[in-house]
Amino acid sequence: MQWYIVALLLTVLTSSQGILTTLSQSNGRYDYDYATVPFLAEVFKLLVSSLFLWKESQKSPSPKMTTDWRTVRLYPIPSIIYLIHNNVQFATLTYVDTSTYQIMGNLKIVTTGILFRLFLRRKLSNLQWMAIILLAVGTTTSQVKGCGEASCESLLSAPIQGYMLGILSACLSALAGIYTEFLMKKNNDSLYWQNVQLYTFGAIFNMARLVADDFRGGFEKGPWWQRLLNGYSITTWMVVINLGSTGLLVSWLMKYADNIVKVYSTSMAMLLTTILSVYLFNFKPTLQLFLGIIVCMMSLHMYFAPPQMLVDLPPVVKSEDLECLVEVSSDRRTDS
Amino acid sequence: MQWYIVALLLTVLTSSQGILTTLSQSNGRYDYDYATVPFLAEVFKLLVSSLFLWKESQKSPSPKMTTDWRTVRLYPIPSIIYLIHNNVQFATLTYVDTSTYQIMGNLKIVTTGILFRLFLRRKLSNLQWMAIILLAVGTTTSQVKGCGEASCESLLSAPIQGYMLGILSACLSALAGIYTEFLMKKNNDSLYWQNVQLYTFGAIFNMARLVADDFRGGFEKGPWWQRLLNGYSITTWMVVINLGSTGLLVSWLMKYADNIVKVYSTSMAMLLTTILSVYLFNFKPTLQLFLGIIVCMMSLHMYFAPPQMLVDLPPVVKSEDLECLVEVSSDRRTDS
Repeated sequence: MQWYIVALLLTVLTSSQGILTTLSQSNGRYDYDYATVPFLAEVFKLLVSSLFLWKESQKSPSPKMTTDWRTVRLYPIPSIIYLIHNNVQFATLTYVDTSTYQIMGNLKIVTTGILFRLFLRRKLSNLQWMAIILLAVGTTTSQVKGCGEASCESLLSAPIQGYMLGILSACLSALAGIYTEFLMKKNNDSLYWQNVQLYTFGAIFNMARLVADDFRGGFEKGPWWQRLLNGYSITTWMVVINLGSTGLLVSWLMKYADNIVKVYSTSMAMLLTTILSVYLFNFKPTLQLFLGIIVCMMSLHMYFAPPQMLVDLPPVVKSEDLECLVEVSSDRRTDS
Repeated sequence: MQWYIVALLLTVLTSSQGILTTLSQSNGRYDYDYATVPFLAEVFKLLVSSLFLWKESQKSPSPKMTTDWRTVRLYPIPSIIYLIHNNVQFATLTYVDTSTYQIMGNLKIVTTGILFRLFLRRKLSNLQWMAIILLAVGTTTSQVKGCGEASCESLLSAPIQGYMLGILSACLSALAGIYTEFLMKKNNDSLYWQNVQLYTFGAIFNMARLVADDFRGGFEKGPWWQRLLNGYSITTWMVVINLGSTGLLVSWLMKYADNIVKVYSTSMAMLLTTILSVYLFNFKPTLQLFLGIIVCMMSLHMYFAPPQMLVDLPPVVKSEDLECLVEVSSDRRTDS
């Protein structure tokens, strides 16, 4: 499968996630405990990956599976980073409002680029760096509040702790992605075996969160397993399966493409959700949404188009023309 | 003189123009007739250019001056285009408010690129096209009204005639620039001789406008020459000399650089004015101003930086390495 088909599918599913979550509410609130959704999504991913691994093991050659402790012990790390991230996110929201938090979330695009360079040592051209910054600027532009909308006075006027925590949150979120990519590409183990390890720990950590919530709430609503599916509708199940499916696609991309592809996918999904909201929820489109979309499209093209499509390169050199040639690359600036 | 020094100077002077014009008001209104400013600026440019032409004619070789009617008759054309443009602008403003007109004014950046390609047959790389679009998006983003500001309900909700006239206005404005560049580069006449012709017609057309204003007003305030300098302060004279100087720099750029350089200069000036307004007039900076500046800076870099600085080009080919070489350019996509 080509990476861009998977990326496109991820965009569509991530975009549906926002729509489905909104549709799963009744009268603007959830009839079910939202914290159960990520847990069930982890279980769904674990079941699907186990099934695929089992099917793969029926064929020869059997899937490559590293089972020594020195490798397996790395698989809870993404879950641990997400756990820390969730707590930092919670702390950040005590200083900043959700609009500002959402705006700051776009920093993740830039921090992913930086950690991608630093930890995975992947080189990006200057143009690709510019594309990454433009993607962050474009998504932010699309989120700028229109005139007359509420809670904009507070935007970017939070205490400094809020911004520091926001930056930390963006770094942790990027680190989780970068670490997962490192894990998936570390060896050529079967993707499904890697998934099984990843999601086993994912399910455990999500379950721990439900237990912690119960303790924090003093078991007022009873233990989590008794009310796991309370208030679940067809739409809620679709939210679970959709979230699980996006997770599986992200795993695939981490192994066969990279974090930047994932970042583009999810950013485009954000824009797609906003566009769909215009039709589905009578969301009023703003000029800044339109401008943000153009910037993101340009960024996409700048990052992924082959350089020779973007700039006038020196003509292809044929061996018969080479006798008197010394340098091919010439200064092609357009100043006059 | 290097073109980028002239461009930088133009940016600074154009930016001062907005500041000076605001400073020349007292209590938010003009004590003088603003229509006299462009007329006096034309006279100033005419005097300066005549002086330089005279100095040039003292030296040998004497300046090249084409004086046949077939060339001279082309020089009123930019003034005629500006005259039509002013009327279209006036008509547009009956359909749209000034904020929307200002936003639509950024279209001029894109129409200049298109006419630059069509009429002057100058090729731009795909990246340069993208840079031009991003410049227009960036300047527009910086102008998006913040929340709570007035007259934003009306933004982009004008009748269709308003938009058609706005597009026509952007085309005419671009056409005037492109035509001037064509005139200046048509032959290698002395720049000052070309200026003298351009500004003679400029002064005549501006004078005609003052006369027309008098007729329209029924000579209530007396003929224009009697009240030409009424209410002029030192600041008003600085506005005149500044406007004249930017005109001279634009002429220079039209001959030795091009319209795109001018468009970048004036766009950067707009951003600089907004930044200076934050300090000088306690203008409240918005997030979208910051985002717009980033997009414009990226655009500037994309347009003017040499391609080899932006993308990873194939390495420079040395003649001793060429024996077995067939193709230099290779597909360097970053997908994995």
